[in-house]
Amino acid sequence: MRALVFNGPGEKSWAEVDEPTIIDATDAIVRVDLTTVCGSDLHILRGDVPEVSAGRILGHEAVGTVTAIGAGVRRVAVGERVLVSCISSCGACEYCRLSRYGQCVGGGGWILGHLINGTQAEFVRVPFADTSTYAIPEGVSDEEMLMIADILPTGYEVGVLLGTVHPGDVVVVIGAGPVGLAAIATAALLSPETIIAIDRDDKRLAVAAEFGADLTVNNSTIDPLAFVMEHSGGQGAHVVIEAVGLVETFELATTLVRPVGHVANIGVHGSPASLHLETLWHRDVTITTGLVDTFSTPTLIRLVASDQLEAKAFITHRFSMNDMLDAYDAFEHAGDSGALKVVIAATPQ
Amino acid sequence: MRALVFNGPGEKSWAEVDEPTIIDATDAIVRVDLTTVCGSDLHILRGDVPEVSAGRILGHEAVGTVTAIGAGVRRVAVGERVLVSCISSCGACEYCRLSRYGQCVGGGGWILGHLINGTQAEFVRVPFADTSTYAIPEGVSDEEMLMIADILPTGYEVGVLLGTVHPGDVVVVIGAGPVGLAAIATAALLSPETIIAIDRDDKRLAVAAEFGADLTVNNSTIDPLAFVMEHSGGQGAHVVIEAVGLVETFELATTLVRPVGHVANIGVHGSPASLHLETLWHRDVTITTGLVDTFSTPTLIRLVASDQLEAKAFITHRFSMNDMLDAYDAFEHAGDSGALKVVIAATPQ
Amino acid sequence: MRALVFNGPGEKSWAEVDEPTIIDATDAIVRVDLTTVCGSDLHILRGDVPEVSAGRILGHEAVGTVTAIGAGVRRVAVGERVLVSCISSCGACEYCRLSRYGQCVGGGGWILGHLINGTQAEFVRVPFADTSTYAIPEGVSDEEMLMIADILPTGYEVGVLLGTVHPGDVVVVIGAGPVGLAAIATAALLSPETIIAIDRDDKRLAVAAEFGADLTVNNSTIDPLAFVMEHSGGQGAHVVIEAVGLVETFELATTLVRPVGHVANIGVHGSPASLHLETLWHRDVTITTGLVDTFSTPTLIRLVASDQLEAKAFITHRFSMNDMLDAYDAFEHAGDSGALKVVIAATPQ
Amino acid sequence: MRALVFNGPGEKSWAEVDEPTIIDATDAIVRVDLTTVCGSDLHILRGDVPEVSAGRILGHEAVGTVTAIGAGVRRVAVGERVLVSCISSCGACEYCRLSRYGQCVGGGGWILGHLINGTQAEFVRVPFADTSTYAIPEGVSDEEMLMIADILPTGYEVGVLLGTVHPGDVVVVIGAGPVGLAAIATAALLSPETIIAIDRDDKRLAVAAEFGADLTVNNSTIDPLAFVMEHSGGQGAHVVIEAVGLVETFELATTLVRPVGHVANIGVHGSPASLHLETLWHRDVTITTGLVDTFSTPTLIRLVASDQLEAKAFITHRFSMNDMLDAYDAFEHAGDSGALKVVIAATPQ
Repeated sequence: MRALVFNGPGEKSWAEVDEPTIIDATDAIVRVDLTTVCGSDLHILRGDVPEVSAGRILGHEAVGTVTAIGAGVRRVAVGERVLVSCISSCGACEYCRLSRYGQCVGGGGWILGHLINGTQAEFVRVPFADTSTYAIPEGVSDEEMLMIADILPTGYEVGVLLGTVHPGDVVVVIGAGPVGLAAIATAALLSPETIIAIDRDDKRLAVAAEFGADLTVNNSTIDPLAFVMEHSGGQGAHVVIEAVGLVETFELATTLVRPVGHVANIGVHGSPASLHLETLWHRDVTITTGLVDTFSTPTLIRLVASDQLEAKAFITHRFSMNDMLDAYDAFEHAGDSGALKVVIAATPQ
Repeated sequence: MRALVFNGPGEKSWAEVDEPTIIDATDAIVRVDLTTVCGSDLHILRGDVPEVSAGRILGHEAVGTVTAIGAGVRRVAVGERVLVSCISSCGACEYCRLSRYGQCVGGGGWILGHLINGTQAEFVRVPFADTSTYAIPEGVSDEEMLMIADILPTGYEVGVLLGTVHPGDVVVVIGAGPVGLAAIATAALLSPETIIAIDRDDKRLAVAAEFGADLTVNNSTIDPLAFVMEHSGGQGAHVVIEAVGLVETFELATTLVRPVGHVANIGVHGSPASLHLETLWHRDVTITTGLVDTFSTPTLIRLVASDQLEAKAFITHRFSMNDMLDAYDAFEHAGDSGALKVVIAATPQ
Repeated sequence: MRALVFNGPGEKSWAEVDEPTIIDATDAIVRVDLTTVCGSDLHILRGDVPEVSAGRILGHEAVGTVTAIGAGVRRVAVGERVLVSCISSCGACEYCRLSRYGQCVGGGGWILGHLINGTQAEFVRVPFADTSTYAIPEGVSDEEMLMIADILPTGYEVGVLLGTVHPGDVVVVIGAGPVGLAAIATAALLSPETIIAIDRDDKRLAVAAEFGADLTVNNSTIDPLAFVMEHSGGQGAHVVIEAVGLVETFELATTLVRPVGHVANIGVHGSPASLHLETLWHRDVTITTGLVDTFSTPTLIRLVASDQLEAKAFITHRFSMNDMLDAYDAFEHAGDSGALKVVIAATPQ
Repeated sequence: MRALVFNGPGEKSWAEVDEPTIIDATDAIVRVDLTTVCGSDLHILRGDVPEVSAGRILGHEAVGTVTAIGAGVRRVAVGERVLVSCISSCGACEYCRLSRYGQCVGGGGWILGHLINGTQAEFVRVPFADTSTYAIPEGVSDEEMLMIADILPTGYEVGVLLGTVHPGDVVVVIGAGPVGLAAIATAALLSPETIIAIDRDDKRLAVAAEFGADLTVNNSTIDPLAFVMEHSGGQGAHVVIEAVGLVETFELATTLVRPVGHVANIGVHGSPASLHLETLWHRDVTITTGLVDTFSTPTLIRLVASDQLEAKAFITHRFSMNDMLDAYDAFEHAGDSGALKVVIAATPQ
């Protein structure tokens, strides 16, 4: 079969490789109908994720059709169409039992396209199929479903739920890339008073407004602290969601939050930030970090099915698998292409 | 009357000053029967708390007798004996309505011995008397009650409750000074599996064991990370409570916590710490800061009354008010004196 | 002044009475600009609330202007325009400290138009003015504000919050009267998958659909259990809100709820219901009751100000105070008049 | 092999039956080393549980040794010693994903000795072995472990956790049988101010005091309402746990609870109770029901291992499997025998 193979930092190819087969009794093999590219694929390609070895097939999001199952699989049948989640869950370890599948110590967690071969391929082996795939219900299209593989639960769980957004809150989202937009769209589900998006790019801020931001701030020209204070009765935001992953945006987040408020970090960071405990120690602030767990997948599916969440709005480009490298190119140069999420469909035979 | 007056950095006196009088209708005047010294009094004396002006009477903990009340006071009567809490609460602002009295924006918060005159005096004016004092019930001695003015709610609320200690948890408390001991004693109320105390002083660790620590680590000789991992199945602590206030102890706390765990900072910090987001971003860690709110005061009173919390164990020294400077001396040189909390009683007339 | 006086069961008059004066230092006197009638006023008139004595001025909802304050009032000034909440809060008792003002044991709770004179009058004495009134912010009209005096917090707190509505839930509201509609409108803030309204009156169900019900069931012709099961994957509703107050509607609620679900009772009941423990004991069901606390008032004000909650939609009729008896008449015969909430404005002098 | 077989209402035998074999890939076969009898076994024998068919092997609690596993079992190996929990969990259905294994709709829940053959036998087939068994750690004896199969998680989860016991609370437990005692013992983990046990049998009340009840009330001679009010400042209990299963004890529970308090029903009920909504509707009371989920099993194991919970105290009698009928006899006539839990050990070969 064909697959997108990581050949070491800076090197990738759309190459011919062996098809996967069942290894463990809890595995399924899924023929990939749709997949996509994520920011962490770019991180891997830049060499920032050293645990990914050369030869690895990338990708951790897919919608597809089950072609084989192991002897221990009970809830998934051959021929069924499923969402392959970015997080695999053994379902039995202490973290999975707490619904914290992202922290799975039983062999799951973020493994696809990372520690084992991933979804940017014609077929993928999915471990723990019973607890790591989701049936596609009536009323949800494959493309919508694909947006629930990673980006929507990431924004919702790590940003909105860990940040504890409540009706009537002032919510700030720093970073209007795909994950920041997912945080904005899912924060809106909880009816905050105001969602303020902060970014350095006016085009992205215009998109943020379409996704539900009530106010937008370009922090290359406007002081975000003064702006947030003005729009929060001088108290600061109830919830600040960091969706960039830079030292300065994290530190900004901790200045924008009110006493008793929450800073929810979604950003993938490569260096330590300064935590200004000399001003924060007495302010009753909560700071959370997190990898997506995907426990909210069934909820998000229902919300997309009932038209409360517009999953399709994230999709800006569509490719066939044979144009996988073009899909990467569009996603990598989002500044020019305006790409949010690119959908890559199996090439018809 | 006599009072302990801050005369600018490094300068204090036991001086004759005017007695306080009712200013607002919600005030009470309390004759101080018992007071004590807190670490933050020492911070003020070192000049670390610039908002405290020269001439200020220090102290924010007292047990006493009401001698006058304003026209708007309903729940407190002249002649009643009360605990004066370290935190005043207006009872009506948005933070008080959330039980976050420490963040009061209606004129309360930590004001006694800070922004207005305090309790290390023969008399003290207590604003918002209805919501800032607590009746002394049968079965609780004045000395026990005094321990509920600050130290016990600080350890319990900012350490144990914000840290979310649960039965069966592994809990680490860094720092075995009075506040760390209060965190240990109140963490034990929730039956964790193991409480591990970390400090650099073997004498303090011996005291920590008496207060309920199951294991103690002197981190000048033993690697605390290896120790905690060994005693937590290699996962780290569910809850780490920082009760020192130094950069290195805060950073240590963030290495000892397991995925999905909590770091609760109680320490008063003067400088920023490094937050290692490059390792923490995906570990689902929650970090909290906080000033005590004293919402748990009624609970703590019931627990002392029912002998589930040994408030008296914190008291190591007793002085008369006329020996106020000796009391400060003993508390300041705790390393030599072994002082935890010093009780200072009104000098009999 | 003029006021609506309860003269014993079945008897009321719009009568000349003495103007109220300050009694306690924490009182304010408010000139009533707008008031309204509530279902509990009708209960009183029917003689169902024996603690209300003849001569009592009814009414517990108002928007008005402060004309006098006691010596202990700090946050409210003469001339300010305020919402008078249906619940008075002493701000200091153990229940007020938990934000459970409806259970106040310090002299508050539901007292206006119940244990003391109420708001259906030209002036009203408001005890605990600092903690029982709310400033009217820019962007919220008096009429909108009046809807926050009782009906919106009742639906939101007792129905939606105690019922723990979450995004993606199936929510059933039994009873499409004013309080049921308030529960529907505020449940929608939390983006449930489906809101199902149940009532015996098609006109009311049509109104429920306008307030946000996705599906409506007339249970005089359709089996509500079969309907709810069909629209919840055979599991039942996550949350059932009872907003009628009859034995049969409460018992219906307990049959519609899924395992691990919640039944939130808002209805005012006069007799015991059967609780079918023989089927419920093993189903992990939570049942809550509650009087409104009004802790959500600031949140609801922000949501109305930001146009996320259409408070005005409840208002169907407007009267002048001199036509108070007509207002009662319209409200009492809602079946004919279609009345939801009637606004009664001070008669211009 | 030999097993305790239900032969229809009133009929049981210690009979020779076929040994179980692996049916599903996720099964394990466990050789039973220890088992016990539960109140629900007696219910079945009385014919109160019609879904149990004649020929069924009873029992849902065991400690044993794995003798075979299916192809899909990953976490359990042949030769390992395990606790067999009373609740089986598929680990993948919507309820298991919420840790509500007792409500499992994927084939688990309470099935052992109920819908499939149980543990009162020499061997038992355990479905979903990965998520329905627990390794026996060092420091916990087999007998202690057996107490965690049902009774301890039932008291803790359904009574203490659903009832939300907090430090400083007044807690009432109605019924001092084995489950009520488990509620008392695990409530004590959370340091309530007072635990009050209510029963009609002085001998059982004496045992309750040993398990941690601070006060005991024989409600055949003392009015429990007056007693509880006297010991709760006239407010009633924060938490009332019903551990009997009769109409009158449930109704008693709802009178003993304070405003904003919780009634947690553990009792197995056969008939409806009256819920006095005419007095409860405005009191902010929460009532919960529940079947044990056993999500707390790992926590309880740690608490027993660290000597914070005395699991052994429940064991009053010991039998060999060949005396299974005598074990039933002792348990059934607990009034005479004083039996709490009887331990039944495999007969040495």
